[in-house]
Amino acid sequence: MPAAPFANAALIAVDWGTTRCRAMLLDGNGAVLDEADSADGIGALGGAGHEDAFNAVVANWPKVPAIMAGMVGSRQGWHEAVYVNVPASAEALAQGLLKFETSDHRPMAIVPGLVLRSETRDGDVIRGEETQLIGLIEEEPDFSGIAILPGTHSKWAAIENGEITTFQTFLTGEVFELLARKSLLRHSVAEDSDDIAGSPHFALAVRRSVLEGLPFLGAIFSVRVRQLLDGVSGDDNLAYLSGLVIGGEIAAAKQIGLLDAERPIRIIGSRTLARSYDAAFKVAGHKAETRDGSALVRRGLIRLARANGLL
Amino acid sequence: MPAAPFANAALIAVDWGTTRCRAMLLDGNGAVLDEADSADGIGALGGAGHEDAFNAVVANWPKVPAIMAGMVGSRQGWHEAVYVNVPASAEALAQGLLKFETSDHRPMAIVPGLVLRSETRDGDVIRGEETQLIGLIEEEPDFSGIAILPGTHSKWAAIENGEITTFQTFLTGEVFELLARKSLLRHSVAEDSDDIAGSPHFALAVRRSVLEGLPFLGAIFSVRVRQLLDGVSGDDNLAYLSGLVIGGEIAAAKQIGLLDAERPIRIIGSRTLARSYDAAFKVAGHKAETRDGSALVRRGLIRLARANGLL
Repeated sequence: MPAAPFANAALIAVDWGTTRCRAMLLDGNGAVLDEADSADGIGALGGAGHEDAFNAVVANWPKVPAIMAGMVGSRQGWHEAVYVNVPASAEALAQGLLKFETSDHRPMAIVPGLVLRSETRDGDVIRGEETQLIGLIEEEPDFSGIAILPGTHSKWAAIENGEITTFQTFLTGEVFELLARKSLLRHSVAEDSDDIAGSPHFALAVRRSVLEGLPFLGAIFSVRVRQLLDGVSGDDNLAYLSGLVIGGEIAAAKQIGLLDAERPIRIIGSRTLARSYDAAFKVAGHKAETRDGSALVRRGLIRLARANGLL
Repeated sequence: MPAAPFANAALIAVDWGTTRCRAMLLDGNGAVLDEADSADGIGALGGAGHEDAFNAVVANWPKVPAIMAGMVGSRQGWHEAVYVNVPASAEALAQGLLKFETSDHRPMAIVPGLVLRSETRDGDVIRGEETQLIGLIEEEPDFSGIAILPGTHSKWAAIENGEITTFQTFLTGEVFELLARKSLLRHSVAEDSDDIAGSPHFALAVRRSVLEGLPFLGAIFSVRVRQLLDGVSGDDNLAYLSGLVIGGEIAAAKQIGLLDAERPIRIIGSRTLARSYDAAFKVAGHKAETRDGSALVRRGLIRLARANGLL
């Protein structure tokens, strides 16, 4: 008789966002034994059927405890995990874990998001990215600086002494998509381009936005004008538009004091987007290092599970 | 036998944009004898059928010369009227008129747009708004300051000594529509609101954008957060978002040196949008006066027709 599969499985770590549910089966040391995922994102589920969707993803695995991060903890999620205030350490997030059991008595935990409340500025929220930030703090316990998680909604967080001290959301990715696909500018940019990060048009737009202070709302019409007057190609213009939004984000972060010449920068994210941000920071005169986002999710989930006795 | 209708008709003045074709029948003094319009905008025509569309609008009127402004002079228009460089006076635009005859020998003229070419910034173009600017210069020959034409693509122009010296396009209206209708923020704002200009949420957003220097890309996610954390209503949030984009436009204009404390401001435009801009300027500490856009189109077209012997 063969050994039971995954006999040393100890924890299921789940990154459950708006569009996908990604699960990893881990052993007691946090090593990955298996992975599975589905398109049952929180958006697609529309507020119901979470337990069935979870069971479908983990069907082939032993019944070990699970820890989950992302929109699964939102109002539309499985259970709402109430935001934890910044500044917040891994311990504060672990204490804020929402614990429950499935109908077949599996121990479950959902990582809470973070909330910023302030008298002097609008508030802000994060849900999902806090786990990657905890992963980064695990990986680099002495890191003080800025962590940037690019995406549809780009998140910047300041980390000091093992704590997430403040953060800021920029709608960069969503604004880029809307401008490139739905605005008048769509006629002036290509559908896609191979090498945005390496394009001199990307660098030019970043330079204008960050170093010359061209304001975003006054900059974007020039994408159309470049095509109309100068015959700039759709590929080059897509890179230019990308440079305007990413450069605009960096300029905005400087303006509100999140970024200065001294603070080290970590970019957490997918390969293509991380390359663009890295290139933009080079143009802007900042040194940045890139970290793999999915590795940090796992690391963060393991850290929080350990702090809470789930692992 | 009754007198021939419109016996003293002298000129047809046409404002032919992307979505509509609006025509006025004028006498020799520029007084309006009749008006007609159609939904045959340049966008709907798709590059053909302009003469038929024109004849349909003016069918009941005598065969007098016509002068036209707007997208009718673009590449997709009836005939392309090549841009005139700024700085530009009414005389320069009149000299740039594109003249032709219809197939039934009616004398026609199309007003050219304006182009800004610069070594130090991206170029810019205007097509249609130049005619309202000439109308403003006719109405206030000694005006020196800034004229603002709010809209899908908001245009700011500097006027000095009877000349349009420079201008800048902001995609404010289009960005507002995309954010309010197509982005994540659409869940946090109402479809429409009665009194955006009078809302304290509008004023707050303008204050933050213009006076406190909150950068646009870092500001807009707060629309969502205000709903999520503070239960701000869709009506109030629509006003807030409107304040962020209009305030962001004003802040950007200050940043690039178009706006300072001294320059008088004229807002040219439709009632609702003009009210919002007027309210925003009040919050920002600038005094602005509003002028009716369609009256200025007529005035500009008459000025250019006279300079060219069409009237």
